[in-house]
Amino acid sequence: MNKDSSNIMALAPNTSNKRETVCIFGTGDFGRALGHKMIQSGYRVVFGSRNPQTSSLIPKDAEVLSHAEAAQKAAIIIIAIQRQHYNFLIPLAEILHGKVLVDVSNNLKINEYPESNAEYLAQLVPGAKVVKAFNTVSAWALQSGTLDASRQVFVCGDDMKAKQMVMDIVRALGLTPSDQGSLLAAQEIENYPLQLFPMWKFPILLSLGLTAFFFFYCLIRDIIYPYVYENTDFSFFIAISIPNRICPVLALILLALVYLPGVLAAIIQLYRGTKYHRFPDWLDKWMLCRKQLGLVALAFASLHVLYTLVIPIRYFVRWRMSSQIISQALNNKTAPLNNTYAWLSDSYVALGILGFFLFVLLGITSLPSVSNNVNWREFRFVQSKLGYVTLILCTAHTLVYGGNRFLSPSSYRWYLPNAYMLSLIVPCIVLVVKFVLIFPCLDKPLTRIRQGWERNPQYSE
Amino acid sequence: MNKDSSNIMALAPNTSNKRETVCIFGTGDFGRALGHKMIQSGYRVVFGSRNPQTSSLIPKDAEVLSHAEAAQKAAIIIIAIQRQHYNFLIPLAEILHGKVLVDVSNNLKINEYPESNAEYLAQLVPGAKVVKAFNTVSAWALQSGTLDASRQVFVCGDDMKAKQMVMDIVRALGLTPSDQGSLLAAQEIENYPLQLFPMWKFPILLSLGLTAFFFFYCLIRDIIYPYVYENTDFSFFIAISIPNRICPVLALILLALVYLPGVLAAIIQLYRGTKYHRFPDWLDKWMLCRKQLGLVALAFASLHVLYTLVIPIRYFVRWRMSSQIISQALNNKTAPLNNTYAWLSDSYVALGILGFFLFVLLGITSLPSVSNNVNWREFRFVQSKLGYVTLILCTAHTLVYGGNRFLSPSSYRWYLPNAYMLSLIVPCIVLVVKFVLIFPCLDKPLTRIRQGWERNPQYSE
Amino acid sequence: MNKDSSNIMALAPNTSNKRETVCIFGTGDFGRALGHKMIQSGYRVVFGSRNPQTSSLIPKDAEVLSHAEAAQKAAIIIIAIQRQHYNFLIPLAEILHGKVLVDVSNNLKINEYPESNAEYLAQLVPGAKVVKAFNTVSAWALQSGTLDASRQVFVCGDDMKAKQMVMDIVRALGLTPSDQGSLLAAQEIENYPLQLFPMWKFPILLSLGLTAFFFFYCLIRDIIYPYVYENTDFSFFIAISIPNRICPVLALILLALVYLPGVLAAIIQLYRGTKYHRFPDWLDKWMLCRKQLGLVALAFASLHVLYTLVIPIRYFVRWRMSSQIISQALNNKTAPLNNTYAWLSDSYVALGILGFFLFVLLGITSLPSVSNNVNWREFRFVQSKLGYVTLILCTAHTLVYGGNRFLSPSSYRWYLPNAYMLSLIVPCIVLVVKFVLIFPCLDKPLTRIRQGWERNPQYSE
Repeated sequence: MNKDSSNIMALAPNTSNKRETVCIFGTGDFGRALGHKMIQSGYRVVFGSRNPQTSSLIPKDAEVLSHAEAAQKAAIIIIAIQRQHYNFLIPLAEILHGKVLVDVSNNLKINEYPESNAEYLAQLVPGAKVVKAFNTVSAWALQSGTLDASRQVFVCGDDMKAKQMVMDIVRALGLTPSDQGSLLAAQEIENYPLQLFPMWKFPILLSLGLTAFFFFYCLIRDIIYPYVYENTDFSFFIAISIPNRICPVLALILLALVYLPGVLAAIIQLYRGTKYHRFPDWLDKWMLCRKQLGLVALAFASLHVLYTLVIPIRYFVRWRMSSQIISQALNNKTAPLNNTYAWLSDSYVALGILGFFLFVLLGITSLPSVSNNVNWREFRFVQSKLGYVTLILCTAHTLVYGGNRFLSPSSYRWYLPNAYMLSLIVPCIVLVVKFVLIFPCLDKPLTRIRQGWERNPQYSE
Repeated sequence: MNKDSSNIMALAPNTSNKRETVCIFGTGDFGRALGHKMIQSGYRVVFGSRNPQTSSLIPKDAEVLSHAEAAQKAAIIIIAIQRQHYNFLIPLAEILHGKVLVDVSNNLKINEYPESNAEYLAQLVPGAKVVKAFNTVSAWALQSGTLDASRQVFVCGDDMKAKQMVMDIVRALGLTPSDQGSLLAAQEIENYPLQLFPMWKFPILLSLGLTAFFFFYCLIRDIIYPYVYENTDFSFFIAISIPNRICPVLALILLALVYLPGVLAAIIQLYRGTKYHRFPDWLDKWMLCRKQLGLVALAFASLHVLYTLVIPIRYFVRWRMSSQIISQALNNKTAPLNNTYAWLSDSYVALGILGFFLFVLLGITSLPSVSNNVNWREFRFVQSKLGYVTLILCTAHTLVYGGNRFLSPSSYRWYLPNAYMLSLIVPCIVLVVKFVLIFPCLDKPLTRIRQGWERNPQYSE
Repeated sequence: MNKDSSNIMALAPNTSNKRETVCIFGTGDFGRALGHKMIQSGYRVVFGSRNPQTSSLIPKDAEVLSHAEAAQKAAIIIIAIQRQHYNFLIPLAEILHGKVLVDVSNNLKINEYPESNAEYLAQLVPGAKVVKAFNTVSAWALQSGTLDASRQVFVCGDDMKAKQMVMDIVRALGLTPSDQGSLLAAQEIENYPLQLFPMWKFPILLSLGLTAFFFFYCLIRDIIYPYVYENTDFSFFIAISIPNRICPVLALILLALVYLPGVLAAIIQLYRGTKYHRFPDWLDKWMLCRKQLGLVALAFASLHVLYTLVIPIRYFVRWRMSSQIISQALNNKTAPLNNTYAWLSDSYVALGILGFFLFVLLGITSLPSVSNNVNWREFRFVQSKLGYVTLILCTAHTLVYGGNRFLSPSSYRWYLPNAYMLSLIVPCIVLVVKFVLIFPCLDKPLTRIRQGWERNPQYSE
């Protein structure tokens, strides 16, 4: 629903008496933007400022008073000033007693202070009810009304009623409040707007590293080797041919890395005989970014599909085909249909299509709105069963693509095997270990361990 | 937002006095995991157990007492034991009077008992306020913090205040409560985690059946027939050629089956002259799984697109093309451009592209987050108008693909028509009937019936 | 979760005494459907009607009384009658005093009346607490249970407690209430179901206009020109070749138009030296539909990809290729590999693939459920940084595609340049201006202006 109802609301006649008065401490950019939006939504707004007369940018309909005077006019006071200046609130403690203080501040760095700004505020003014809110909204978004990313306002606080009052204001401004619990959550809420895809860092760095490695690997095999030995210039392979070798290799490796930590965890649990010991830290972190790893793998797989489908359009491919046909025609010979080739060619393409199709399905089910509509059993069915089928299909696709070239010496230029052969190592390990773990002699104890059983209960904490 | 705030929260100094105490009956896997998570979130947790001393796995900060003692310490008691053992609560009825009892149990089968576990609990302890919650969360997810699928916690109960208290705990644990109404909803909430895509069962079984039928049909026509009459081995057609016949056929038939029940319903309503009679059961069920039918059809259409786009990469296709060119070159003849062929070839491809494009649009609008942002009028515009345009385009795509081959006797091997000819039956029926229903003489009474008018009001219940 | 719990609920034994009674004024289609659903959910329903005896279609378990009698039986009264008949409520004002009146009405046109129906109702019956709700749900959807699009029920009202009571009913019916604030929001809520993609109107009209223009442009250049000068009939180009010229041109222009308003806004802000003046109206509107513009551009880009990938399947393309090969073979000459051509061909394809890939990423992040999980910093990173990279890649794709044909006179038939040359104008302007704006001498003051600094503070309102 288009929430830009501010115009309609501003036109409504004298409804401000229905709404409570809200006080805003601080006449900076954010304070003014919030005040403006609140007036549009029908609130009475009083600004508290050190020098009330000079604030010419303040919305017309707002009053500007001293801090003490302004605070007395409202039950809710929005503290739109920086943490460093919170000290000035100490003398006002008496006036602020019992008021709802809304901390809207953000920091410049993650975990900049030992305690969150909101908790610090609560310590400074112990008699007030502190609520953290609005820090995820930008002044610019409030003014322009383009709130695409940030409709959601995280709210937390120890006083339920105060929190409810703030959430009502949030809704009145056309935003969506999200109750995050007690004031303990403030630290996390303050860190939130500073994050830049924290869960994606490891998968993206890993894939960049692997991409660089395989790029130089293919450069040596596919461009430098023919240049040295055959004196042919295939430098234009950099544009499509080499990316189309790197992408499937990375997609397969990253997909296997999604399922490797689960297999490792099973081995650790079997070895320890309990699930009540924590996994090593690296394994924990790895397991938490499996979704992101899988999506990066899907991105590479999609690029691989696109690079493959444009093959017949490329000038080089058309040139090579017509030269082959012409030389055959001039030599007056036609190659008969090789049934084995036809089988191999069609099977690896078919396996790739099915693998990619299931991979896209996995990607769609990881969309938040889809996975929220799915129960735990369904989610595990898709992400585990379907995921393994995808891995099997993609591994088979690569194996059949290799076909009988695995043994051909021409595949090993400078003793370097083809890139796709390297990419098979991790998925094959994962599939073999997973296959072993399915045997009842291992699967049964593992299931019991996961249900809470312990081999040596004395190990418990 | 990354809700793994447990570490931060656990570090917070002595905040437990702010939080109420929660009692958990049962020291099993789920009880312990929930208790652990609650302590991390700042709650005081008291476990009630039959033999309080032996529970060594219980989180350190939790107290373990007898059931009666533990119950007295808290206003909220989480019953983390199995339904079979609920009887032991009867003697405690007096202590539990007025307490909030949270039923977290699940069953092993759908509708295992006549009444839900939560309702059974409410009958056993009539003085308590029973709330159903947490049954959709797994112990493993609580411990590991990877709550991808199951952030949503369905809550129901007859006492609003008790429900609110439980929902506050849910939020404090970083989960999303979803109020499902009164305790009557408990049965459904308990069935929910046992379901495995119930709405998808019929569409998937139907498409598997049709796939099997068309696979053997194409096997006979495209592999066995040429083997018998021409002694050629086209067995490799199984990998790509035959799937690429089955996929479009299924996509078209399933898409038509999405719109067939609506047409049937209109006929039934017109015949009965009222909308107040229930449709036959099979029609009701069919109408409820139209979205799933459509998405399965979209999956087949996507596979068809992929199978089609890889055609020029296949060895067999390249071999056939070069043999044709070479034989033409050797015979020194060039075929002139056939304008009719060019028109037919380009039109059926263009119709297919446009049909697929609209089909994908339909699929995107059926994503929960997209369809939630769309009003009823917009949803019907997309799913009905755009849907029929898609059906028309896809049917036209198939008709033009057939072109003048419909009358050619070579299309009928062993009197079997091509698979795509069979696929045209259902969509053509749907489109013809729909076209008839658009005529004012039928559309007008139908619109009136749907607005509540009745031809013979005495028929009403 | 499948909310069709009505059957289970209806079977529940005599639980109606737990639920409050709800009164419905009006026995029309919507009133009856709502009453039926409420009875299924366990409520007692009393209908208020002018002539209570004749309403044979009313659900069996509901009572039908006169308006005054019915109103006395319940605290909540749903006004399921049309606005024109609201007058009859005036004599009932005394009975309705303190009751919750739920306005479920819709209008036939957007902003049909000066005040919303709910506000009008509140004026007529000043003693009642008016809540707007249920207007986004259709009677048909309530009856059939297929609530795909309309689970969301917007609720607004001035009395918090009355609103809460209505939201509880909404939840009990298996729908999702969405609190929209005070009764001032009623106007917007009443307009909502009448909208048909209001934000999409401008992007779609614009793209239709541009499509028509480029269609005739290409028709002249690619079909009429060769027909006049070479007497060849390429009319079948209308099916694929011309769409495949129009689609990339429109995708590029529309994508550039997404970023043009941001660049214009920056220039205006720099010129004015303040951000506190409103932008011209057309710029405001343009900025608000950037997302829709971008998605339409993505649609054209997707069509371009499909049209391009089917090229080798087309009869005309296969015919042209085999004629070329045959003529080469007959003339006994083979063209050597042209390395420059290979580079150009592969680069423009690679640039296109990468541009399209990023474009799809942009599209995915604009899905509501994805953008809700992203903070402001991440959203701006994706939509601004990634967006500009996409624009650069797509522009480079077009430039390299042109290659050395820009200067060739054969590209200018009847002095008309190729369509893709025209499409480069807007993106090149955007990129050049954006590049200029990055220079520190312009970027620094702009950043300061956007943080609230003003060059001439006396300009302020």
